[in-house]
Amino acid sequence: SRMLLPRNISLSTGHLPEALGGAPPPLRPNVINPYGRPYRYWQMFLIVLVAYSAWASPFELALEKAVSRAHLVVDLVVDVFFCADIVVSFFVAYRDRSTDLLVDDRGKIAVRYLTRPWFVLDVASTIPLQIVYQLVRGKKNGPCGFLILLRLWRLRRASKLFARLEKDTRLSYFWTRFIKLFCVALFALHCASCVYLWLAFHYRDKEQTWIGSLRGDFKERSVWFAYTYAVYWSMTTMATVGYGDLHAANTGEKLFSILFMLCNMGVACYVIGNMTNLVVHGATTTFRMRDMVDQVARYGKANRLPAWMREQMVESVQLRFQMAELLLPDEVLSELPKAARSAVAQHLYKATVEDCYLFRGASDNLVVQLVSEMKAEFFPPKMDIVLENENPTDCYIIASGQVFVMRIGPHGMAGEIGVMLNIPQPFTIRSRTLTQVIRISRSHLQNTVRPATADGDTIFSNFVQYLESLKVRHGEELTFARDVGHDT
Amino acid sequence: SRMLLPRNISLSTGHLPEALGGAPPPLRPNVINPYGRPYRYWQMFLIVLVAYSAWASPFELALEKAVSRAHLVVDLVVDVFFCADIVVSFFVAYRDRSTDLLVDDRGKIAVRYLTRPWFVLDVASTIPLQIVYQLVRGKKNGPCGFLILLRLWRLRRASKLFARLEKDTRLSYFWTRFIKLFCVALFALHCASCVYLWLAFHYRDKEQTWIGSLRGDFKERSVWFAYTYAVYWSMTTMATVGYGDLHAANTGEKLFSILFMLCNMGVACYVIGNMTNLVVHGATTTFRMRDMVDQVARYGKANRLPAWMREQMVESVQLRFQMAELLLPDEVLSELPKAARSAVAQHLYKATVEDCYLFRGASDNLVVQLVSEMKAEFFPPKMDIVLENENPTDCYIIASGQVFVMRIGPHGMAGEIGVMLNIPQPFTIRSRTLTQVIRISRSHLQNTVRPATADGDTIFSNFVQYLESLKVRHGEELTFARDVGHDT
Amino acid sequence: SRMLLPRNISLSTGHLPEALGGAPPPLRPNVINPYGRPYRYWQMFLIVLVAYSAWASPFELALEKAVSRAHLVVDLVVDVFFCADIVVSFFVAYRDRSTDLLVDDRGKIAVRYLTRPWFVLDVASTIPLQIVYQLVRGKKNGPCGFLILLRLWRLRRASKLFARLEKDTRLSYFWTRFIKLFCVALFALHCASCVYLWLAFHYRDKEQTWIGSLRGDFKERSVWFAYTYAVYWSMTTMATVGYGDLHAANTGEKLFSILFMLCNMGVACYVIGNMTNLVVHGATTTFRMRDMVDQVARYGKANRLPAWMREQMVESVQLRFQMAELLLPDEVLSELPKAARSAVAQHLYKATVEDCYLFRGASDNLVVQLVSEMKAEFFPPKMDIVLENENPTDCYIIASGQVFVMRIGPHGMAGEIGVMLNIPQPFTIRSRTLTQVIRISRSHLQNTVRPATADGDTIFSNFVQYLESLKVRHGEELTFARDVGHDT
Amino acid sequence: SRMLLPRNISLSTGHLPEALGGAPPPLRPNVINPYGRPYRYWQMFLIVLVAYSAWASPFELALEKAVSRAHLVVDLVVDVFFCADIVVSFFVAYRDRSTDLLVDDRGKIAVRYLTRPWFVLDVASTIPLQIVYQLVRGKKNGPCGFLILLRLWRLRRASKLFARLEKDTRLSYFWTRFIKLFCVALFALHCASCVYLWLAFHYRDKEQTWIGSLRGDFKERSVWFAYTYAVYWSMTTMATVGYGDLHAANTGEKLFSILFMLCNMGVACYVIGNMTNLVVHGATTTFRMRDMVDQVARYGKANRLPAWMREQMVESVQLRFQMAELLLPDEVLSELPKAARSAVAQHLYKATVEDCYLFRGASDNLVVQLVSEMKAEFFPPKMDIVLENENPTDCYIIASGQVFVMRIGPHGMAGEIGVMLNIPQPFTIRSRTLTQVIRISRSHLQNTVRPATADGDTIFSNFVQYLESLKVRHGEELTFARDVGHDT
Repeated sequence: SRMLLPRNISLSTGHLPEALGGAPPPLRPNVINPYGRPYRYWQMFLIVLVAYSAWASPFELALEKAVSRAHLVVDLVVDVFFCADIVVSFFVAYRDRSTDLLVDDRGKIAVRYLTRPWFVLDVASTIPLQIVYQLVRGKKNGPCGFLILLRLWRLRRASKLFARLEKDTRLSYFWTRFIKLFCVALFALHCASCVYLWLAFHYRDKEQTWIGSLRGDFKERSVWFAYTYAVYWSMTTMATVGYGDLHAANTGEKLFSILFMLCNMGVACYVIGNMTNLVVHGATTTFRMRDMVDQVARYGKANRLPAWMREQMVESVQLRFQMAELLLPDEVLSELPKAARSAVAQHLYKATVEDCYLFRGASDNLVVQLVSEMKAEFFPPKMDIVLENENPTDCYIIASGQVFVMRIGPHGMAGEIGVMLNIPQPFTIRSRTLTQVIRISRSHLQNTVRPATADGDTIFSNFVQYLESLKVRHGEELTFARDVGHDT
Repeated sequence: SRMLLPRNISLSTGHLPEALGGAPPPLRPNVINPYGRPYRYWQMFLIVLVAYSAWASPFELALEKAVSRAHLVVDLVVDVFFCADIVVSFFVAYRDRSTDLLVDDRGKIAVRYLTRPWFVLDVASTIPLQIVYQLVRGKKNGPCGFLILLRLWRLRRASKLFARLEKDTRLSYFWTRFIKLFCVALFALHCASCVYLWLAFHYRDKEQTWIGSLRGDFKERSVWFAYTYAVYWSMTTMATVGYGDLHAANTGEKLFSILFMLCNMGVACYVIGNMTNLVVHGATTTFRMRDMVDQVARYGKANRLPAWMREQMVESVQLRFQMAELLLPDEVLSELPKAARSAVAQHLYKATVEDCYLFRGASDNLVVQLVSEMKAEFFPPKMDIVLENENPTDCYIIASGQVFVMRIGPHGMAGEIGVMLNIPQPFTIRSRTLTQVIRISRSHLQNTVRPATADGDTIFSNFVQYLESLKVRHGEELTFARDVGHDT
Repeated sequence: SRMLLPRNISLSTGHLPEALGGAPPPLRPNVINPYGRPYRYWQMFLIVLVAYSAWASPFELALEKAVSRAHLVVDLVVDVFFCADIVVSFFVAYRDRSTDLLVDDRGKIAVRYLTRPWFVLDVASTIPLQIVYQLVRGKKNGPCGFLILLRLWRLRRASKLFARLEKDTRLSYFWTRFIKLFCVALFALHCASCVYLWLAFHYRDKEQTWIGSLRGDFKERSVWFAYTYAVYWSMTTMATVGYGDLHAANTGEKLFSILFMLCNMGVACYVIGNMTNLVVHGATTTFRMRDMVDQVARYGKANRLPAWMREQMVESVQLRFQMAELLLPDEVLSELPKAARSAVAQHLYKATVEDCYLFRGASDNLVVQLVSEMKAEFFPPKMDIVLENENPTDCYIIASGQVFVMRIGPHGMAGEIGVMLNIPQPFTIRSRTLTQVIRISRSHLQNTVRPATADGDTIFSNFVQYLESLKVRHGEELTFARDVGHDT
Repeated sequence: SRMLLPRNISLSTGHLPEALGGAPPPLRPNVINPYGRPYRYWQMFLIVLVAYSAWASPFELALEKAVSRAHLVVDLVVDVFFCADIVVSFFVAYRDRSTDLLVDDRGKIAVRYLTRPWFVLDVASTIPLQIVYQLVRGKKNGPCGFLILLRLWRLRRASKLFARLEKDTRLSYFWTRFIKLFCVALFALHCASCVYLWLAFHYRDKEQTWIGSLRGDFKERSVWFAYTYAVYWSMTTMATVGYGDLHAANTGEKLFSILFMLCNMGVACYVIGNMTNLVVHGATTTFRMRDMVDQVARYGKANRLPAWMREQMVESVQLRFQMAELLLPDEVLSELPKAARSAVAQHLYKATVEDCYLFRGASDNLVVQLVSEMKAEFFPPKMDIVLENENPTDCYIIASGQVFVMRIGPHGMAGEIGVMLNIPQPFTIRSRTLTQVIRISRSHLQNTVRPATADGDTIFSNFVQYLESLKVRHGEELTFARDVGHDT
């Protein structure tokens, strides 16, 4: 029951804007695009400095004596760069959540940045407290030594970077995640080593420390010597190897070791869980393929199907998985808006359908509507596409590859005689090479091609001509009802 | 084939109770609501005491000499509180399973509490056995020392707390579970340490114990010194680090170590399994998003779709996941009763639909029925909503955001011309910003808006007026069939 | 298009066998039912002997000197029992795979047992080779000492037991599997310990062995002393703790340790994998519940639904999961044969439907057919069952619980006025307590209750009477079409 | 609305090629089939040589003094074989990706091989650099000693082998994957051992090495002595046992140990993840079965169904899983092309259907179309197949097994009286033994068997004859409408 049945309608489309879907509008001058190249490079450069800060801050805290003048200069330079980034932040456009568009108004940008809680932390982590303290008091690392850890706030950038990389579909999720876990492990290792060093250097009796009980002269030797020992021990503990050549020698060390091992257990479980997840997920497709092939093979064996039938079945299942990226599964298709799906189908199949003898001369409208319901399918060599005597439920357009029996080469069709005449398929049609076909169901074809219309007549006469040519070629009689379109 | 077709029916609704769905009835005086604030705080306070009991009971058993008078007083105070809880239990309402309502009859409450098996254990774990024994015999910790472990029955409260927290949807399941596993690990660590201490303090030759072989003076030193050693060793074993600086020195210790390691293996596997589960589950959404985006991107690449088409596809898939919490997937919807679904749809869409030009003046009944089948959908900026020449299967109401071509601003519509006239969509309509639309399928619209009814006429005249205004605006001819409603 | 439309048909059912579905026929005399109690107990008793064999065989091989006369006697007694089982096997019926029936023909039983490959191994593992050898040669444990390991063939019984227990749905899969993994771990531990003992006792220089380097007198001390050391070391290695107080001291021990650690890694991974699997699987339901509730809660919050609506939604989702075992999900239902589903539906709903005023006096046939499509549903207290103005798509029979508005108590109905009169539901109906309803869809009701039949008339007159009684009660006018059944 | 309704059509099928689906065409002479036996054996032989290279290359690099003349000769022989394989590669056909056919043109084969990047590496890894260097310079292992690691390129073959084996459905995926992981672990172990040996042999102060601190004479003893120590230590570290009897003694060793432990953590997680995946996947079917049976059992218990009904339900669910390999689930079927599905159904069910009394004399066309929608189903003994008074929705052909009530033995039917007469099923039919039936739905039967056709008449007269014979047998009256085919 349709509500309205107008035959002709014309509405003005003259008011379409020319720039429909054009390039994004340029941002105002002096405002930086957060997705542009220059800003990306600047961010990548800052990440390198973040890595340095993450390494240097705990190290400087643990080994005050190692903090040379050169060290302080490097720290100062790094601080200057982060200071520059604070300034730059006032010029970077941001994406508004309610409209999903970029905002390039500098007033709004500044208000947004200043009202976020991390602005304060950004500033606090940039002030070179150590130098300020030294200038004021004339001493190195006074009571506010721990303030150096404020710099670890910069790690937020690394965390944001990984969050972005994980969503970037050009990168492998497995490796992004793997590297993230690896970096976290390395940082934990470094921190634990620094704590161990701090414990060793601050304990009153150096013989009663983890390193001093083995190497009494550790305070006199190079910083790197003690650092290697500390990393070695932390690693031994973290990997739960626990050789025992180095071990906690006093109560403070024992307490930290307990804490470290507790954390490690949590982290180890978390890492194992993550790896399992990644591995499981990576293997999903392989497993699905193996499962299907196994099921088909077992079914063939249990039902004692002939060998060629079993091979055909296994090969076609395998081909589906090989060709998986050329096809979209239904659950993904259903997530796309209808307009996008139509656009894709038109792009892929329209030319092929228009090339096909049956639809030559058909209107654009008809082709668009036929195409929207078409599905691509692949057949390995020597596989039946249409079986003699089968119900005529589908019609196939051969998009590429070669088939036996009726005709060879692309843009031929298969199964259309059964479908058009509504008789059991008169021939078996079999692929000769790897063949791609486009499938139209009989019901969709019949619903779209209405008999008493211009398109219906065109298509029917195309089909009659073709049958005539077949008759001529094979010198045989073809009998069929002439009352096309009058039998509904 | 409908059974009955009455046109007008009126049934009394005057006997509706006023308090339909009002507040829950108040409980009787002197009965405590188990879901009320005061009882919750009381329970939380008891949990703290449970934690103390769990720590103190094994400790007191292992180190009798450590049990000072102050210790006994604290134990006694704790016991008094648990005694109070037994009394309170006689006043707390409970939920009846067959009606799902609270029972506040004190007789029933008492009968229920007294007939449950754990009443006996509640009482037994509250009697201060140690003090009783001391008063009677005048000795500390006689043969019934192990009875102190009866207090561990109180851990049942902690287990119930976690069971409840895990079901509480306001808390993160990951962290609830994580903290539970952590607490179990800590308790196991503490118990093992206490057993090791007991073994060391009760072995005849103190040089042949795990601690005595290193520190012969451990019995003379503070209790905490030995306890730190014990926890350190237990932790070393539990985390499978096994430095070896402390190790079993006699057969009894060896046997307990074997047992402890065996249990640990089971626990470790269980913990790893749990973590994997939590991690896997937490990452499900991320993986689904990555998978879909990957599939769409690979499909676009494999089929050599133009870049803008690939971007549109990827963006719309990503938007679906960003907007996930604004939409309910079908499998969740199907779990809700029909009445609840209708109520939600009315709350969300009714105002928007009534605001819409096409449905102005339509009856409430019609709007309610239209609304019950509507679905919200989101489009990123620059995305096609309706494509020219597409089949007219859906009609969209723009709830928020802006679109190109026809009209701008909320409460406009899209696709209604194609749907109402049943012609291929005459325009492409494209979003300008992030756009929320409400979709009605053509079939539902046509089934609900029956031609020869008052509502049908209203809506049709709305549509005609709109088309006329378009004609006036664009100075063009619109031809369509006037025989509305007569062609079914 | 129905093929045949007979009105009355009567076929003889007098030839139905009386014992249709009766008890299984008794087995022949002197044949044992493998599923009977006595045989089960016999098998359980043998499992205990298997456990002894599994422990004793490697032990005897490793510590020949420990093999006392008492030991040999116990071994002999065990062998006699296994010998008896071989004899018993000739009298135990077996299940034929092609018919799924028990075969109790002793000839067939004997042939089947004798032709299976394990008959030979059953016999070989029962011959007391050690004693035979001793009698023949007069020496203990000659070159064929390793033949004692043939007895480990008996472990096949344990493996079969676990396979059966895992399929037994009365036992928890988690614990069955857990105990199996635990037993495997214990056996591996015991075997490794025995190998270590053998290595220590057979090495030329006893100071250069893992135990001798610590305890030079180990050969003089009790067997259990050395065994405890061996188990302790194996356990330390297996749990990857590796204290290092005991460690490989010569090349042979080093090689075996390498092998043992390699195997352990495989086993550990396998065990962790299994535990993860069990844990993941056990938590599936909890996760599904949490997920749904979370999604509903987030949806309510994101769309700013009123608090009472959000609570209603969350409560009804939670109730679904609490009542899960009273309902079967569709994917399980589809695995049951149709006849079984019908039988269950009749058992559950027939009495309730027959009790219902609308179907009083209806034929049995009708009730059976109505019942086959019914679904049970639960509503928490204060939840809308039917909403005013909703489409009349479902009719509810209240099986238990109480509802507001229309009537109270079981066997009432809800929504039938809207459904029968095909008008928007005239009332809101809300549950007062936990309510179980049985849902019939309008379309199924209308298809089954055909207008011009005896059943149709009965049901219609029931309904009219009820409406009249309502009118009388409320003194109002009810107008509806009288032309029932003539409007299709 | 069918488009065309021809009654008779005949098209020539005389031009079908005789070799339709015959054997693959033979390859040209002197071209080797990559899937043939001889080439497979050659590849397997090369894999053995790859294993040797993987072992020998790091070993030779670490222990130059161990490289005897015999060693060099073996290496040379191995190199000759790999050289031969390069030559052979020019004669092996390859599969073209676009047509999925074998290419046997030697020109194309050569071009393809020469243009691939690995051709250079194949050649480079075959040149016996060591010997070349020795001949030129007269010294063993000069500065280019590390070039020996080029031979590890050959491992690519092992990796390709495993990739192929994992896809080979004749092998268990679990074991293929397990062995792969095991080989990787062994290779890592060997490499680490070689590095440790290299470190020990090249450190200036041999007392300050991991082995020298225990065994000062290690340089004088056999190579295998040191190698055993190295493998033992690596294994201890890899399995995270870490006894501590061997441990890093200088900074170089400490650094490598840190690196090795870091890698191990990654590898361990990866291996555990893989194992979990394999175990989880292997247990999927068991879990699904357990779950379904559990759900059915719990449902039966919660709803207090009679015991026999619960048993019937549980048994039929269990049977479904036992018979799983005889049936294909729908999601696998949908992956097979329609023609393949039809061919399988014809092979399995055609003979049974033709044998059936109802379809005797029916045309081949009809049988083919009936068969394409048939499904097999299994019933355990004593299970209801058709229930009295049930809706007549399905008709069953008994393919094997025995049923009660109507008839016994294969090729009988069940439920056809209800279906053909469209009355509630007049009898209950119950299986006597394990029974396989083929199910046809009533709607498909009625759509395929059109009344006024030759086939329709044949089937109807078959049915009437059968009913008559029943009447004669039971001396009762059967009344049914004679106007078959005229009531649609």
